[in-house]
Amino acid sequence: MELQTELAGRPADEPGAGTNLAVDTAPATLDRFRQVRAQTARLASCLSDADATVQSMPEASPAKWHLAHTTWFFETLVLAPFLPGYAQFDANYAFLFNSYYEALGTRLNRASRGMLTRPSLGEVLAYRAHVDAAMADLLCAPLAPERLALVDLGIQHEQQHQELLLTDVLHLFASNPLEPAYLPGAPLPARAVVSSQEDGFAEFAGGLLEFGHAGPDFAFDCEGPRHQRFLVPFRLALRPVTAGDWVAFIADDGYRRPELWLSDGWAACQAENWTAPLYWRCEDGGWTSMTLRGRQPLDPAAPVGHVSYFEADAYARWRGLRLPTEFEWEHAAAATAPTGNFLETGALTPRGPAAGSASASPAQLFGDVWEWTDSPYVKYPGFRPLPGAPGEYNGKFMSGQMVLRGGSCATPQSHIRATYRNFFHPAARWQFSGLRLAGDA
Amino acid sequence: MELQTELAGRPADEPGAGTNLAVDTAPATLDRFRQVRAQTARLASCLSDADATVQSMPEASPAKWHLAHTTWFFETLVLAPFLPGYAQFDANYAFLFNSYYEALGTRLNRASRGMLTRPSLGEVLAYRAHVDAAMADLLCAPLAPERLALVDLGIQHEQQHQELLLTDVLHLFASNPLEPAYLPGAPLPARAVVSSQEDGFAEFAGGLLEFGHAGPDFAFDCEGPRHQRFLVPFRLALRPVTAGDWVAFIADDGYRRPELWLSDGWAACQAENWTAPLYWRCEDGGWTSMTLRGRQPLDPAAPVGHVSYFEADAYARWRGLRLPTEFEWEHAAAATAPTGNFLETGALTPRGPAAGSASASPAQLFGDVWEWTDSPYVKYPGFRPLPGAPGEYNGKFMSGQMVLRGGSCATPQSHIRATYRNFFHPAARWQFSGLRLAGDA
Amino acid sequence: MELQTELAGRPADEPGAGTNLAVDTAPATLDRFRQVRAQTARLASCLSDADATVQSMPEASPAKWHLAHTTWFFETLVLAPFLPGYAQFDANYAFLFNSYYEALGTRLNRASRGMLTRPSLGEVLAYRAHVDAAMADLLCAPLAPERLALVDLGIQHEQQHQELLLTDVLHLFASNPLEPAYLPGAPLPARAVVSSQEDGFAEFAGGLLEFGHAGPDFAFDCEGPRHQRFLVPFRLALRPVTAGDWVAFIADDGYRRPELWLSDGWAACQAENWTAPLYWRCEDGGWTSMTLRGRQPLDPAAPVGHVSYFEADAYARWRGLRLPTEFEWEHAAAATAPTGNFLETGALTPRGPAAGSASASPAQLFGDVWEWTDSPYVKYPGFRPLPGAPGEYNGKFMSGQMVLRGGSCATPQSHIRATYRNFFHPAARWQFSGLRLAGDA
Amino acid sequence: MELQTELAGRPADEPGAGTNLAVDTAPATLDRFRQVRAQTARLASCLSDADATVQSMPEASPAKWHLAHTTWFFETLVLAPFLPGYAQFDANYAFLFNSYYEALGTRLNRASRGMLTRPSLGEVLAYRAHVDAAMADLLCAPLAPERLALVDLGIQHEQQHQELLLTDVLHLFASNPLEPAYLPGAPLPARAVVSSQEDGFAEFAGGLLEFGHAGPDFAFDCEGPRHQRFLVPFRLALRPVTAGDWVAFIADDGYRRPELWLSDGWAACQAENWTAPLYWRCEDGGWTSMTLRGRQPLDPAAPVGHVSYFEADAYARWRGLRLPTEFEWEHAAAATAPTGNFLETGALTPRGPAAGSASASPAQLFGDVWEWTDSPYVKYPGFRPLPGAPGEYNGKFMSGQMVLRGGSCATPQSHIRATYRNFFHPAARWQFSGLRLAGDA
Repeated sequence: MELQTELAGRPADEPGAGTNLAVDTAPATLDRFRQVRAQTARLASCLSDADATVQSMPEASPAKWHLAHTTWFFETLVLAPFLPGYAQFDANYAFLFNSYYEALGTRLNRASRGMLTRPSLGEVLAYRAHVDAAMADLLCAPLAPERLALVDLGIQHEQQHQELLLTDVLHLFASNPLEPAYLPGAPLPARAVVSSQEDGFAEFAGGLLEFGHAGPDFAFDCEGPRHQRFLVPFRLALRPVTAGDWVAFIADDGYRRPELWLSDGWAACQAENWTAPLYWRCEDGGWTSMTLRGRQPLDPAAPVGHVSYFEADAYARWRGLRLPTEFEWEHAAAATAPTGNFLETGALTPRGPAAGSASASPAQLFGDVWEWTDSPYVKYPGFRPLPGAPGEYNGKFMSGQMVLRGGSCATPQSHIRATYRNFFHPAARWQFSGLRLAGDA
Repeated sequence: MELQTELAGRPADEPGAGTNLAVDTAPATLDRFRQVRAQTARLASCLSDADATVQSMPEASPAKWHLAHTTWFFETLVLAPFLPGYAQFDANYAFLFNSYYEALGTRLNRASRGMLTRPSLGEVLAYRAHVDAAMADLLCAPLAPERLALVDLGIQHEQQHQELLLTDVLHLFASNPLEPAYLPGAPLPARAVVSSQEDGFAEFAGGLLEFGHAGPDFAFDCEGPRHQRFLVPFRLALRPVTAGDWVAFIADDGYRRPELWLSDGWAACQAENWTAPLYWRCEDGGWTSMTLRGRQPLDPAAPVGHVSYFEADAYARWRGLRLPTEFEWEHAAAATAPTGNFLETGALTPRGPAAGSASASPAQLFGDVWEWTDSPYVKYPGFRPLPGAPGEYNGKFMSGQMVLRGGSCATPQSHIRATYRNFFHPAARWQFSGLRLAGDA
Repeated sequence: MELQTELAGRPADEPGAGTNLAVDTAPATLDRFRQVRAQTARLASCLSDADATVQSMPEASPAKWHLAHTTWFFETLVLAPFLPGYAQFDANYAFLFNSYYEALGTRLNRASRGMLTRPSLGEVLAYRAHVDAAMADLLCAPLAPERLALVDLGIQHEQQHQELLLTDVLHLFASNPLEPAYLPGAPLPARAVVSSQEDGFAEFAGGLLEFGHAGPDFAFDCEGPRHQRFLVPFRLALRPVTAGDWVAFIADDGYRRPELWLSDGWAACQAENWTAPLYWRCEDGGWTSMTLRGRQPLDPAAPVGHVSYFEADAYARWRGLRLPTEFEWEHAAAATAPTGNFLETGALTPRGPAAGSASASPAQLFGDVWEWTDSPYVKYPGFRPLPGAPGEYNGKFMSGQMVLRGGSCATPQSHIRATYRNFFHPAARWQFSGLRLAGDA
Repeated sequence: MELQTELAGRPADEPGAGTNLAVDTAPATLDRFRQVRAQTARLASCLSDADATVQSMPEASPAKWHLAHTTWFFETLVLAPFLPGYAQFDANYAFLFNSYYEALGTRLNRASRGMLTRPSLGEVLAYRAHVDAAMADLLCAPLAPERLALVDLGIQHEQQHQELLLTDVLHLFASNPLEPAYLPGAPLPARAVVSSQEDGFAEFAGGLLEFGHAGPDFAFDCEGPRHQRFLVPFRLALRPVTAGDWVAFIADDGYRRPELWLSDGWAACQAENWTAPLYWRCEDGGWTSMTLRGRQPLDPAAPVGHVSYFEADAYARWRGLRLPTEFEWEHAAAATAPTGNFLETGALTPRGPAAGSASASPAQLFGDVWEWTDSPYVKYPGFRPLPGAPGEYNGKFMSGQMVLRGGSCATPQSHIRATYRNFFHPAARWQFSGLRLAGDA
C-alpha cells in the first residue's frame, strides 16, 4: 500500500486552496508545480504500460494520455511562447496530445487515444522530465503575472486530470473480467457511522445573496464573475445519500418506475439497462461494488457514488424532494472549510462520516463524492472566457451538462473550493458522483 | 388561398389570451372548444390521407396523429372520467394515440406513428366528431372548476398541436423532392422594412424583479410559480435577427469556424453538414427557402427561422453578443401586448416588420419566430407539476432542452403570453425558431 | 372478396410460361402487356392513398412506388428511345422512380421512398394510363425483336413488383397495431392434408447434368448460360417443411441453441430477438400469423413461410439434414410442370397440399413459398449481363445473397419456371420464403 | 533486423506441408509443436506489453490475446481431457480466451478483447510456458491417433493466428499517427521484375475434375471431401495484379465509377470513402503504403495487397475480366509446388517476382498475397464438420464470406497447400489480400 501512504504523506503545512496566488513569486509557483507534477507521476506509478495505454470508452482517456496531455499544456501554452530557445520534445506530440483546443491546430480523434501504444510509457515519462526541466528554468527567474497565471492554470489543469486518470483507470479495470485492483490490499475499515445525522435537514432563509468567485486567488473563468442572485428559503440534507439509502431505492423498484424519472433519464435507463449504480453487483452475499481497491462489499454508510444525474434526480423524486441548485449548495458550503476525504487521504473511495462529526450543519459537503445539482452548466451574468486558447477551457462546454459541486475522494484537496463548478453530461456515471437532497423550506 | 382567408377571417372580438378562464362557464368553454377544434380541422383540410399519414422523422408526427391524439386527450382525461355513459369510440385508440403518458398505459412506439395508414383520415375525423359531440353534451351543463380546468388544458394542448401539425407538414413536404406547397399560390408581399430599427438596442436596468405566471388565467404548470429573480442591467435588440443578417454570417464562414460554436454545437454542425438554416438552398438566383407556400426566395427583412439553438448561439458569438436569458426576454416582453404575425394572419411564414412600427422598444417579440434564449428549460423555485397524468405534460422534459419565447407565425394568438415557455432540444431546426441578440449593459 | 375472384378469374386458355416469346408479334406482346398491367392495378385497388404511400422499412417500397417504378421502366427504357414524339408524363419522375440504375442518373434515396405523399395515388394511376396508351401506340406496329425483348423484360419486371407489392403491403399492415387485412373476409378452408407424404424423400442419382436456361423463351440473364455441372447423389424431401413442423422446432428450443446456427445467423437471431417466423405470435389459443387476410390461426399443414435463410439452415441442421443446392432443386423440378398455389388462385397464403396429390416425386415445388437453397447467388460460367442499363438488373447483386426457387402464393404463374433464380439476403424474412429439406444419398 | 533473420533462419530440412502426419509419432509431433510455438513467441518478441494489448478494431485481436488463445486451445481441447492430473493455469482464462466456441461455454465479448491490460504480456508468456511443459509431458509418450489429430489441429490453428497476429499488429500500428514499424530498418530491395510475364494468361481446358483434400495429411474439415466438379475452359493470369496495375485503376477513376462495382461493393466504397487500397497514401513523392516495415514507397512490381473482394471484383470488371473461382485456382495450383514469399523469408511484405521466374504457367500462386476468388465460402458436397467443439472451427462461418487461396507473406509455408481455403468478408481489407485475373477461354 505504498501509493496510499505516499498520497497521505503530504505535510500538514502545505499551502492549500486559500493560498493567495496573485502575490506568488515564480519560485513559489515552481514549488507547487513540482509537487503537483510529482503527484501525477505517483498516481501512474502502479500502472503497466498496457494499463496506461488502453482507452476503455470514448469518454475516457488512457493514463498515458493524461500524463502527456498535461505536459503538452505546459509545453504549448507556456514554454513555447515564453522560454526563449525551448526545444520541443517531439513535433508529433502537438497532434497526439491536444485535447480539444481548436485554436491550437488539428488533433487526434478523441476515440483514437487508445491507439497510442507508442510512445511508450517510458517515453512519455521522459517527455514529462524534459518539460519539467524547462519549467524549472523558466520559473527560477521572475515571470510576468499573466504568464504566472498561465502556469497556474496548467497546474490546476493537471490536478483535474489526476482525478480523471483515476476514474478512467477504474473504468478500465472494471471493464476487465478479472477486475484488477488499482490499489491492491485490504479494504479500509469504515469510519464510524453517526446515526444522529440521518435524514436531518438544515434550513436556509435565502434572500438576495452573492455567488461566484472573486478576489485574487485562482479560480476558473466559469466561476465568475461574482454576482447577486435571489434564493427563496430552502433546506439541505445534513449528509449525502448513502449506499444504504440507495439499496432501499432499488428494493422499491426505483429503476422500474417511469413516473420517478425525467423523460430522457428513463430513456437512458432503458437503453443502458440500469438497475443499480455503475460497478454495483448483487451476488449471494449481497451488494458489492468495483472500486480502486478491487471489488468490495458495499459500505452502507458511505455516500453512494457512480450514479448519473438522471438517477440522482429520480431518487430525489422518490423521496418527495429534489436536488439542490448549485447556488443553494454554494450558499451552504460558503461557510464551511473545504476539508474531507480527498485524494490525499489515500482512501480513494467514498466513506461514511467520521465519529463525532454530527452537527446541525450539512456535513461531508467536500470530498467523498461530487454532488449533482439541479443546475445546468451555463454562464454567469457577465461571464467572459479567457482570451485565446485557454478560453476554450470551459465556455464551449456550456450546453447539455449539469453542475456538480464539492469534490470527491479522487480530487486533490488544494484544487477545490466552494465556488468550484464541475460538470458532466446527465447520463455520466463513471465519476465519483453522488447527491444530497434538498427541498423547499 | 381559401385556407389563408379562413385562418385570417376570425372575428376581431374573439376573446384572446387575456380572457379570465377562472370565471368561465362551461358554455363559454364550449364555445372556445369548438373554435379551436374547428381551427385544427381547417388546418388539416388541404391534406390528403397520404399527406396526413406519413411521418417524416421520429421527432415529427403525422397530421392524422395530431388530429387523433388531441381528441384522445379529451376522451381519456375528460370524457371517460366525467361524462357518465360515454361510449369509447374505438378501444384501440388508447394505445395508438397516447403520446407519452406513462400513467395512461402502454402506447405505440413514437417512431411507428407513421405506420397508421389505417384508421383513415376519414375515420379520424369521425372520431373527432364523436368526441366533439360528447364534449358538447358535457359542456352544456355546469362543470366543476377543476374539471373545466382539464378541458382548458385540452384546448391549450390542441393549440400546441396546431403549430406542430404545420411544422411537421412543412418537414414532410420539404422531404419530398417535389417540394409541394401546403398553401399553394403566390407569395405574400413583404411588409415594408423599417430601416431605423436596424441594430438598435433597448437598455434595461435589471434589479430584483418578478417572473412567471400568477393569477387566474390559464397557464401551464411550468410557467409558475411567480417568483423573484435578480437581473443585472442588460440590453436587448430592437428586432430579431433577419434572414439578411444570416446571409452575412454564412458569407463570413460562420458555419466553418469552430471558435464561434459551442462544442456540442460544432459536433452537430459537422455531423449533419449544416451550412445554412434548415430548408435554405443557394441557387443561381440566390437564396431560397422551403416554406408552407413552397420554395420561395428569401425575404432578407424577415426574421430568420429554422435555426437551432446552436446556430443562434454561434451567430451571437460572431456578433460579439449573446442570446438573452428567458428572464431578460420576459422582462422586456411583459409590457408589450402579445400581438404580431401569428397563425391567424394566414401568412404562415415569418415576415419583416410593418411600416411605421419603429420604436425604442423591442419589436416583433411576439409572432413570426420563436426566439431561442440562453436558458435551459428547468423548473422555477417551488415548481409543482399538476397531479396525475397531466403532471407528465411538462416537468419530465426538464432536461437537455432550451427555452424559446414569443410564439411564431404558426402559433395561435390566443395561445401565447409573455410568460409562455416553449422548449426544444438545442439541435432542433424544424420549428419556426429564430433569435434576438442581447448583451450586457 | 372481389379481388380474390378477379385474381382467380383468369381464363384457362391464357398463354402461360411456355409461350415462345421469340416469335411473338408486337400485338401478342401488347396483349400480355395489358393483362399484366391490369393485374398490377387490380392488386392495388384495395389500397387507400395512405396505404399506397407509406414505406414500412428501408427494404420495402410503397405500393405507389411499385406502380410508378414499373411504369417508369417502360417510359425510360422503351418509350423514350423507341416511340418518336413520346411526351414524358412528368420530368420529375425520372428522379423519383428510378430504383437503382446508375446508368440512368441520380435518384431518390431508397429509404426516402415513403416521403412521396405527392404525387397522389390518382396521379400515379394517370401516369400509368399515359404510358399504357403510348405503349399501345408503339405495340400496334411491328417492332424489332431486340425492342420487343425490352418490352418483355418490362413485363417480367412488373410481375416481380406485383409480388413485392404484396409482401411490402403485408409488412406495412403487420407494422400497424390494428393489423388490417389486405383481403378482408373469412379465411380459406385448408386443403386436405395427405399424410402419406410426411417425411418422405425422393432419391436422385446425380451425375454430369445440365442447368440453366436455354432456348428462345424469356429468361433473365442470370439464368444462363446453360451449362454442365456434376451432382453427387442426393435426396430431396417430398414436401416443404410445414408450419406444424416448425412448431416442433420452436418447442425443442430451436431458437435458443447456438450449435444449430451459422455464426452470422445466430448473431441475427440474437440481435433481432427471433423466437418464431416473422408475423407469428403465440397467444392463448395457440399460434397465429399475420397474413394478407389479417391475423389467422396457423395452418399446420401449410408450408412455413417468412423464415430467413438462417432459420431454414438451422432447422435443417436440427433435423440432421441440409438445404438443397439450387442445382439439386432445379434438377428435381425440371421434370415437373410449374403449377401450384400462385397469385392467380387468389389464396394469397401458403396452403397444405391438395387431397390426392401424394406421389413419389417432390410435390409443391412451385407456388406456396419460395424455397431457400444452400446456394449463394453467383454467376454461372460464361455469364454476361445484358448490355446497357438492363445489365444492372441482376449481375450487380451477386454478392451476399442466397438463391430461392419455385415461386410463391404471390408469384404470377406465368412468371415462374424451373430455372428461375430469386435471391434475398440471408436474414430477410418478409417474403413468402420457406424451405425443403435435402440430404446426401 | 534480428527477427527477420530468425524467421528466415529455419533449417532447410524441416518437414514441410507434405509431411505425412498420419504416421507421425508423438515425439515428431512434439517437435513440430515446439517449432510452431517458438515461432509465435518470436513474432511477438518485438512488441511491448502495450502493443500486445490494444485492439484496434472489433475484427482484430490483440497480440496478447492471440498468444493466449492459441494456448487455451491446447489447454482446453488437449490437456484437460487427455493429460491426467493437468493443473489449469488460471481458471479465468477459459472465459477470457475462448474465441467463439459455443460448446465451450460463455466468453468475453469479442469487442472487449482490448480491455485485458491484465494479465500482462509476461503472465501470458508464463501461461504459454506452463502449457508447453504439459504438452511436452503428454507428447513424450505414445498418443492415440485421434488425440494426435487434435494436437495437429492446434498446431495448424496456431499457425493461422501467427498470420492474424501480424495483420492485426499492422492495423494497430497504422492506426497510430506515428506509424511505428513492427520491423524497423531499411526496406528490402525489390526483386527484379520479369517483364515478359505482364498480362499473359495460361489456358486450361477444364472438364470433369477432382477438387478438395484427400489422403492422410492434415487438412481442415472444410477442404473436403474430395469431389468431382465440371469446369468449362478458362484462362488464368500468369501473375497477380500488381501495385503498379492498381495505380492505373485509380487514375482511371476506378473508385468513382459505380458501373464497375457490385451493388454492395459500391455501398461499402461510398460508406467508407475508399479511394485506394487500405494503408495507401498519395503524397508529394507519389504513393506510399504502411507496412510492417513502416510507411514505404510503393513497389509497383509487387502484388497489390490490402484490397477487399469488392475492389478486386471492380478491378477485374474494369479490365473486362473476372476473378477465378476457387476451383479454377485450385486446378491451376495443383501442379505447382507451394513455394514462394512466405513468413519464413522474413520479408513480411509482398514482392515482385524473382528474376528468371518467367514461365508459361501461372507464377506466384503461393505466398505474397492471398488471392480473392469469385467463390463464396460454402460447403463441399458431403461435407461433415468435425465432431464436438472443433466442428465449430469452419462450418459455422459458411455464410457471407468469400474464399481466398494461396497464402501470403505472413503465412507459414508449412501451413499452406493447394486445397487450402481461407475466407473473409468481402469488405475486409486488413489482410494481405490481392487478386489474379481470370477469364473465359
